[in-house]
Amino acid sequence: MFDIQHYLAGKRKRVEDALDTLMLSAGGDFADHVAAMRYSLFIGGKRVRPILCLAAGACISPDPALEESLLPVACALECIHTYSLIHDDLPAMDDDDLRRGHPTNHKKFGEAEAILAGDGLLTFAFDLLSDPRFTGLADSARLQITHTIARAAGSLGMVGGQALDMDGEGREMSFKELKTIHSSKTGALITASVLSGAIGAGGTPAQLDALQTYGDTIGLAFQIVDDLLDVTSTTEELGKTAGSDAEHDKATYPAFFGVEKTRKMAEQASQAAIEVLSSFPDSADPLRALSRYIVERTK
Amino acid sequence: MFDIQHYLAGKRKRVEDALDTLMLSAGGDFADHVAAMRYSLFIGGKRVRPILCLAAGACISPDPALEESLLPVACALECIHTYSLIHDDLPAMDDDDLRRGHPTNHKKFGEAEAILAGDGLLTFAFDLLSDPRFTGLADSARLQITHTIARAAGSLGMVGGQALDMDGEGREMSFKELKTIHSSKTGALITASVLSGAIGAGGTPAQLDALQTYGDTIGLAFQIVDDLLDVTSTTEELGKTAGSDAEHDKATYPAFFGVEKTRKMAEQASQAAIEVLSSFPDSADPLRALSRYIVERTK
Repeated sequence: MFDIQHYLAGKRKRVEDALDTLMLSAGGDFADHVAAMRYSLFIGGKRVRPILCLAAGACISPDPALEESLLPVACALECIHTYSLIHDDLPAMDDDDLRRGHPTNHKKFGEAEAILAGDGLLTFAFDLLSDPRFTGLADSARLQITHTIARAAGSLGMVGGQALDMDGEGREMSFKELKTIHSSKTGALITASVLSGAIGAGGTPAQLDALQTYGDTIGLAFQIVDDLLDVTSTTEELGKTAGSDAEHDKATYPAFFGVEKTRKMAEQASQAAIEVLSSFPDSADPLRALSRYIVERTK
Repeated sequence: MFDIQHYLAGKRKRVEDALDTLMLSAGGDFADHVAAMRYSLFIGGKRVRPILCLAAGACISPDPALEESLLPVACALECIHTYSLIHDDLPAMDDDDLRRGHPTNHKKFGEAEAILAGDGLLTFAFDLLSDPRFTGLADSARLQITHTIARAAGSLGMVGGQALDMDGEGREMSFKELKTIHSSKTGALITASVLSGAIGAGGTPAQLDALQTYGDTIGLAFQIVDDLLDVTSTTEELGKTAGSDAEHDKATYPAFFGVEKTRKMAEQASQAAIEVLSSFPDSADPLRALSRYIVERTK
C-alpha cells in the first residue's frame, strides 16, 4: 500500500527547500518587499500544486534527474498559487484577515505592499520558468510549460474565474455558472500543474490527454471539497475564516446539493480520476493516492 | 533628417493593430474582465516600450520579417506597462482618478476588477511570450527574452521599485534612494524593451552590452523628464494629475536640483544615449531619434 503521508512529507520538504533556495533572498534595497513575499510563501500550505507537478513527471518518466529539473516549475506553480491567495484576501476582494492560521498579507504589511507582493510572486514565477540557470528541460518543453501555466493562471483561467466570482457575489447563480467559476478559478491551475510535470517528462499526446482529464477531475474534487470544508469546518481547523462563502452569499456545492450529496460527489470525482489512470503503471500510484488524499481532507 | 513623428505614428499603428488582434477578445464568460483590460490597453499611450523593442531589433538586423516576429514581444511589454499603471493608480497606491485623460481603471470598473485587470494583463504578457503560434523567434531567444522581461518587471525591477516608492512617501529621501527607485521602477523595463528586441534580432554580446547602456541611459532621461513634467505641466496636458509627486511628498529631480538644472540633466542623458550608439550604422537612427524624442516631451 502506497504511504501517501510519507510521500507528501518528503515532497513537501523537497519543494520547500527549493523554494527557499530559489526565492529571492531578503536583503538589499528590496528587503521589505521580499520579506512580504516570503511571509506568504512560507506561512504554510499543503504544496499540492508543486507536488502534482512532480508526481505527474515521475508517472511518465523514471529518470531520477527529472525531479530536480522540475523543481523550478513546481516552485513557480506555488508562487502563482500564493500570489492568488494574497490578492483574493485583499479588502477589495474577499477581505479576509486570516490565512493558514496567520494574518493575511495585507493585515501584516498593508494593502499596497500586499498588492505588490502578489505582483512580485506572479512575475517571479515566470522568472523561474525562463531562468537560464536551469538547463534540465529542453527549451521547447520550457516554453510549452510556460504557456500552459500562463494560460491557466490568466484571464481565461484563474484570474478570470476570480473576476466571475467577485461579479457573482450576492446574486443568484446557476449551477452552470458555479461550475465555470470553479473550473477556471481553481481547476485550471491544478490541471496545469499536472500537465507541466508531464510535459517536462516528455509525455506523449495520449499521455498528456489522459493526465489533462485526471487534472480536470481532481480539480473538480478539490473544488467540491473546498466548498464542503467551508461549511463543515471551524475557522481554527481551516486556518482561514470558515463560513466565508455563506457570508459572501457565494454559490457552492453544499448550497445546491446539501452536505451529504456533495460529499458523495467529491468521492465520485476522486474515483473517476483514479479510473482515468487505469492504463498507467505503478509509477502513477502517487497520482492515484493524491486523488484519494484530496477527498480525505473532508473527513 | 529622420522623421521621428512619421516613424512613431507608423509603429504606433502597427503595435496597436497587433495588440487588438492578439489581445483576448471581449466575449464569452469573461467578457467584463476582458473589457476592463482592453479599456486601459486602448485608452491611449505613446507605446514607447514596444516601439523601443522594434527599433532595437531593426537596429541589429535588416531582416524585414523580424518586426512581425517581434510584435508579440512588443505587445507583451505594453501589457506589462499597462498593468503597472492600473496597479499604481489604485487607492492603496497613488490613488489617482485620471490616467491618459480618462478615469483610471478602478474608477471605471471598481477596485477588485482593476486589481484583476492588472493581474490578467501581467499574466497575458507571458502567455504571448510563450504562445506556440509565434514561431518567428528561436526557442532559446524567446526564453532569454522572457527572462529579461520577467527580471526587469519583477521584484528586483519594476515591482520592487514601486514598493520602494510607496515606502518612501512622506519621508526624507537621499538622491541615491531616488536613483534606485527610478532605475528599478521605470528604467529596468525600458532597458528590457531595448534588449528584448536586440535578443530577438540575434545581437552579439557586444551589441547587447551597448544597447543595455543605451537603454539604461534613455531610461534615466525618461525618468528625469517624467519628474519634470509633473512640475511643469497642467493636468490637462499630462492626462493624469499634475503636481502629484509634490502632493505625495515624493523625492524628484526638480526637488533636488530645480527645474533648469533638471532640464539640462535630461538633455545630457539623451545626448549620452546617442553617443553610446556611435559605432552603430544608420539602422540605429530610430533609436537615436527616440532618445531625442523622450527629452523633447519637456518642451
